[in-house]
Amino acid sequence: MNAPPRTASLGSLSLESGAVLRQLQVAYECYGTLDPDRSNAVLVCHALTGDQYVASTHPLTGKSGWWARMVGPGRPIDTDRYFVICSNVLGSCLGTTGPASEGEGGTPWGMRFPVITLADMVRAQAKLIDHLGIERLHAVVGGSMGGMQVLSWAALYPDRVASAVAIATAARHSAQNIAFHEVGRQAILADPNWNGGDYYGGEAPTAGLSVARMAAHITYLSEAGLTEKFGRRLQDRQAKSFGFDADFQVESYLRYQGLSFTSRFDANSYLYITRAMDYFDLAEAHDGQLAEAFRGTATRFCILSFDTDWLYPTAEARRVVHALNAARAPVSFAELSSPFGHDAFLLESTEMDRIVGGFLREGA
Amino acid sequence: MNAPPRTASLGSLSLESGAVLRQLQVAYECYGTLDPDRSNAVLVCHALTGDQYVASTHPLTGKSGWWARMVGPGRPIDTDRYFVICSNVLGSCLGTTGPASEGEGGTPWGMRFPVITLADMVRAQAKLIDHLGIERLHAVVGGSMGGMQVLSWAALYPDRVASAVAIATAARHSAQNIAFHEVGRQAILADPNWNGGDYYGGEAPTAGLSVARMAAHITYLSEAGLTEKFGRRLQDRQAKSFGFDADFQVESYLRYQGLSFTSRFDANSYLYITRAMDYFDLAEAHDGQLAEAFRGTATRFCILSFDTDWLYPTAEARRVVHALNAARAPVSFAELSSPFGHDAFLLESTEMDRIVGGFLREGA
Repeated sequence: MNAPPRTASLGSLSLESGAVLRQLQVAYECYGTLDPDRSNAVLVCHALTGDQYVASTHPLTGKSGWWARMVGPGRPIDTDRYFVICSNVLGSCLGTTGPASEGEGGTPWGMRFPVITLADMVRAQAKLIDHLGIERLHAVVGGSMGGMQVLSWAALYPDRVASAVAIATAARHSAQNIAFHEVGRQAILADPNWNGGDYYGGEAPTAGLSVARMAAHITYLSEAGLTEKFGRRLQDRQAKSFGFDADFQVESYLRYQGLSFTSRFDANSYLYITRAMDYFDLAEAHDGQLAEAFRGTATRFCILSFDTDWLYPTAEARRVVHALNAARAPVSFAELSSPFGHDAFLLESTEMDRIVGGFLREGA
Repeated sequence: MNAPPRTASLGSLSLESGAVLRQLQVAYECYGTLDPDRSNAVLVCHALTGDQYVASTHPLTGKSGWWARMVGPGRPIDTDRYFVICSNVLGSCLGTTGPASEGEGGTPWGMRFPVITLADMVRAQAKLIDHLGIERLHAVVGGSMGGMQVLSWAALYPDRVASAVAIATAARHSAQNIAFHEVGRQAILADPNWNGGDYYGGEAPTAGLSVARMAAHITYLSEAGLTEKFGRRLQDRQAKSFGFDADFQVESYLRYQGLSFTSRFDANSYLYITRAMDYFDLAEAHDGQLAEAFRGTATRFCILSFDTDWLYPTAEARRVVHALNAARAPVSFAELSSPFGHDAFLLESTEMDRIVGGFLREGA
């Protein structure tokens, strides 16, 4: 399913901060065929550390797409029916403009890159959708930060989104969400190789980024899932070492997750994207009235949560559903059962498949 | 309530790893008066980053004792009735032997200090209790890692503990507990100032230790408590800065918690004590049968948990209670209600006061 890598040059982008990005590049992947009337486009939005390779092999890791089980021929997001687009978000590091991109003066932006928001990411995507000649999306679909983009799309472009599917997400970042991100950022900033963000061409702050990833990774799993997967089992040994090696499987797993992440992700991108997520609160511009963000929308919504997700718990999904009800928007909601916490949205779930597949077909 | 600082030289200590510490020093504080028959001693055990200053001013921070509201004249642990002892745990850094202490050759141990366990901490305390001429403790009381010491005391010295009060604790560290500690340790190890543990006399790894403390601190608070305390409120500003300053109150709070911690705690001690906690599993020596750890005990137990504590949740407390039931030990158990998560055991709780005070008096 590998399409050639694509990048669009989309001119300038005005940001929420007031800054202007002069030369926006957006990297994206496409799957399936756009109908002659351009009505079958589905935009898939990726999570914090995701990328455009939703259903194709990642060029750095060689791994298959992060949602290959959801996107493909005969899959819930069926590429025999839909033209599926997935773009690397603004601020990331897989081809879309971000802190590692060349800034003015010909050197990488680093921390001179302007601070971005979820709305900025969505406006960059809208420029790509314009570029592809698509007026209205059949659907926007995403989980986690992808779901925040889905809700932002519906709020910013209510006439351009027929259906919105937001999974394992929230309409705002909680104090606990912000706290975990702040730990990750401080871990990166504490790494001397970070060097104020100017490390391109030299040693990257891999130690700090690895710790940030480890802390975040714990929040993606449930306590029960961790216990089931690892418990107190030892790694490749019969007894405790009475040392500081990774005696326990869960330590070994986390160290691997942290280290392998650094080979595919840029530390400054991690700073900027976590900041954008912490700034996210769809109700903020409406005096705390979330329903006002969706007032008069013509979009139909599908909201899904997982019962063991403590990062974006069902209570936050219900808050979105209540706001959509108050805005008289058509909305389907389900809390799905899984032992795997937040990560469940990336894993096998026949119930999620059935609901998402059905919801997209009903909207056609 | 300040007593002069005390340190006891207690000879050699054989450790669970097989290593022997030749010159054990234990620093401790005492409150109240020991009865002529030496029957009114209560040992209070402190948590991971606690110390012996349970009810007296901390010499480095100038703050009042960490459990001054529980220990004192007329308090639940009543110094008019009981002779209260609190000692700095083995491996810590407030006067008891630990990695910052002088090792063989006259230089600080650093990472040459042997890896220790909860049982080693308790054996060191038992030597102090011997030194004070006390055969049997009226009670051993503690929360969090202090509660783990309480359970270990009852398991190791069933004839020397009349009553045991274990609060907000568990009889083992879960995969999630280990995972959070591993993040903290990796943050310290990633700090170049850590220098393999040899930093005494030079720059300490304060950046790494600060990140470790921040990550741990999130686990001490409940999601609801964080929301109530901070929500998405901004710190000393009217609008987002579109930068990386601590815009949110929760960021500012965590940064302060991280930094201030480094002025009173040693990074190597943090490594050793978290390791000891991760190794803790009272059932391990009994083929997973926790009840066997308490078989035939004459100790009476009081087990308390807090409903919003997700670090050591009520399920873990119940596991201890079931094991004690199976061992036919007398046990009182209560789950207390608090919005403050794990930290609740350190905070105002009239119910905890009433239960602990009553339980200690009934045992007299």
